[in-house]
Amino acid sequence: MNTTTKTQREFHLKSRPEGVPGKDNFELVEAEMPEPGTNQFLVQNEWLSVDPYMRGRMREGESYAEPFQIGEPMEGGCVGKVIQSNNDEFREGDYVLGNQGWREFWVSDGQGVQRIDPELDGVEIQNHLSVLGLTGMTAYVGLLEIGKLNEGETVFVSAASGAVGSIVCQIAKVKNCRVIGSAGSSMKIEWLKDVAGIDEAFNYHDTNDVSAKLKELCPDGIDVYFDNVGGDHLKGAIDNMNQNGRIVCCGAISGYNDKQPRPGPNNLFKIIGKRLRVEGFIVRDHYDLQEKFVKDMGGWIRAGKIIWEETVTQGLNNTPEAFIKLFNGDKMGKALVKV
Amino acid sequence: MNTTTKTQREFHLKSRPEGVPGKDNFELVEAEMPEPGTNQFLVQNEWLSVDPYMRGRMREGESYAEPFQIGEPMEGGCVGKVIQSNNDEFREGDYVLGNQGWREFWVSDGQGVQRIDPELDGVEIQNHLSVLGLTGMTAYVGLLEIGKLNEGETVFVSAASGAVGSIVCQIAKVKNCRVIGSAGSSMKIEWLKDVAGIDEAFNYHDTNDVSAKLKELCPDGIDVYFDNVGGDHLKGAIDNMNQNGRIVCCGAISGYNDKQPRPGPNNLFKIIGKRLRVEGFIVRDHYDLQEKFVKDMGGWIRAGKIIWEETVTQGLNNTPEAFIKLFNGDKMGKALVKV
Repeated sequence: MNTTTKTQREFHLKSRPEGVPGKDNFELVEAEMPEPGTNQFLVQNEWLSVDPYMRGRMREGESYAEPFQIGEPMEGGCVGKVIQSNNDEFREGDYVLGNQGWREFWVSDGQGVQRIDPELDGVEIQNHLSVLGLTGMTAYVGLLEIGKLNEGETVFVSAASGAVGSIVCQIAKVKNCRVIGSAGSSMKIEWLKDVAGIDEAFNYHDTNDVSAKLKELCPDGIDVYFDNVGGDHLKGAIDNMNQNGRIVCCGAISGYNDKQPRPGPNNLFKIIGKRLRVEGFIVRDHYDLQEKFVKDMGGWIRAGKIIWEETVTQGLNNTPEAFIKLFNGDKMGKALVKV
Repeated sequence: MNTTTKTQREFHLKSRPEGVPGKDNFELVEAEMPEPGTNQFLVQNEWLSVDPYMRGRMREGESYAEPFQIGEPMEGGCVGKVIQSNNDEFREGDYVLGNQGWREFWVSDGQGVQRIDPELDGVEIQNHLSVLGLTGMTAYVGLLEIGKLNEGETVFVSAASGAVGSIVCQIAKVKNCRVIGSAGSSMKIEWLKDVAGIDEAFNYHDTNDVSAKLKELCPDGIDVYFDNVGGDHLKGAIDNMNQNGRIVCCGAISGYNDKQPRPGPNNLFKIIGKRLRVEGFIVRDHYDLQEKFVKDMGGWIRAGKIIWEETVTQGLNNTPEAFIKLFNGDKMGKALVKV
């Protein structure tokens, strides 16, 4: 590590993608090495998070977060080490969680940055970007706070082997629920059944009628659908929801790369008769639950009730590939980049 | 009135409609005059309610109420007079509200039947089928209990001059909200602005872009959308909803007569970023609120804060026409039949 380097490398948005993003939408730029000023500290990133929501920020216009700007650095979750500090709260050698990903070095005055304990029992530093971070908390908040899951209910999870979905499945098992998951490969289906221990799982490539498949696997209906994909999964879930069922809208990855948005399900009228609640959420609105989340999730991890997968890509320069892979179904669990 | 008649007339479902129902889907049948047994009473209907939800019950299969059976009597809300009684609670001369519409006479042991006060201040007996009945209560429960309306918010109501919509608009005005309504004729728009006193109203026939129209009329966005129609109104509302907005799913009349269900809006992904809650309800689940509803609504009526329209069709034999007219936009307010 050479902190006297005068430059550091960072990815900028080069152009807005049409359809699935490509490597040429990103540019690796040699930028000036930032200097920590008064009350600031310098961080060297060790781990970066790539997440589907970033696709939304590559689009111009309406999104829940500001769009990335062309010619400006990308952002995202990251874990790094403080290597120089003028700040009393963040000391040299501290590990921190921040949102200045897609780059090697960054400075901060500490706003929006959290110190993490690198020696937590059963947890490695990068897990603060996955199971113990916003990814795990998205699963926790969505299923329990928005979905109001009750013990013994039936839960359907799409993209069930993904970063969020795989945690949702296992929290639901902790709550003694019957859990059905969908994923896109036989390897993922095996993992869901044999490793994550859910009750039923199906490969959505093997059916052209998600609704019929769910009817077969959930003869008593679905109480909570945790929606990571939208599209035909949402339609199939609505067909099979029980009265007073809840649909947690967390992601709609099936449509993220559409040039023209696709029509929605043709069975929304069932929301009325079945008294369904369909609710979207953003985990950042629920930071008041973080302490409870860390306590619960930490306990479940130490009790061996939650396991997780991470797909690690090596090297900052491969960050765009790691991101693009989110959309071709090639990874298990949380996608991370080791800088 | 001749209670010694040995027959009474009732409408049966003759065939299931494809598309918009026609008169030939119904059959007027001379049936045996029912005799009140032990603890029963005989009612002569004076007023019948026809409602869009009945279209759902004419369809085979999934609906929130049992489908009507071919060759069996239709049902629906009705107000009638007890003309013979073996029941201590329901005496001869009492007026009652029941669900045995589409016919002249019926018997009951009182289950599901309510006595009504024919001399209530400012209210006529048929109003118990409209503003003071399930119609008004649907508006009340949907807007306040499901929509969780707050004072001063912006509310959009589709089918705003209809039975439910017109009451929704006025409850929202009682709550000091800004109210925007859509309807299908210039007469209805005038009524909404000049009589019901809402802030803005538009004729949806005059625009092919509900979303743009709403953007113009609701520059500060929509907090609660009371959805009676689905389709492009739902899409337009989603485009203009504010963060944490609520969409109350009460009806989807735009699709009730479709032979093939139409695709849903292509902007459902906005439910996530805007943290929307989309919730369906059925008023019958909320009878615990009835006392509060009658007290509040009675007060608003006596204070002149709620006015209502009724479109009355004369004669039992014209009940199918009154029902069919619900779908061609020809009526104002609540549709009733005077037997």
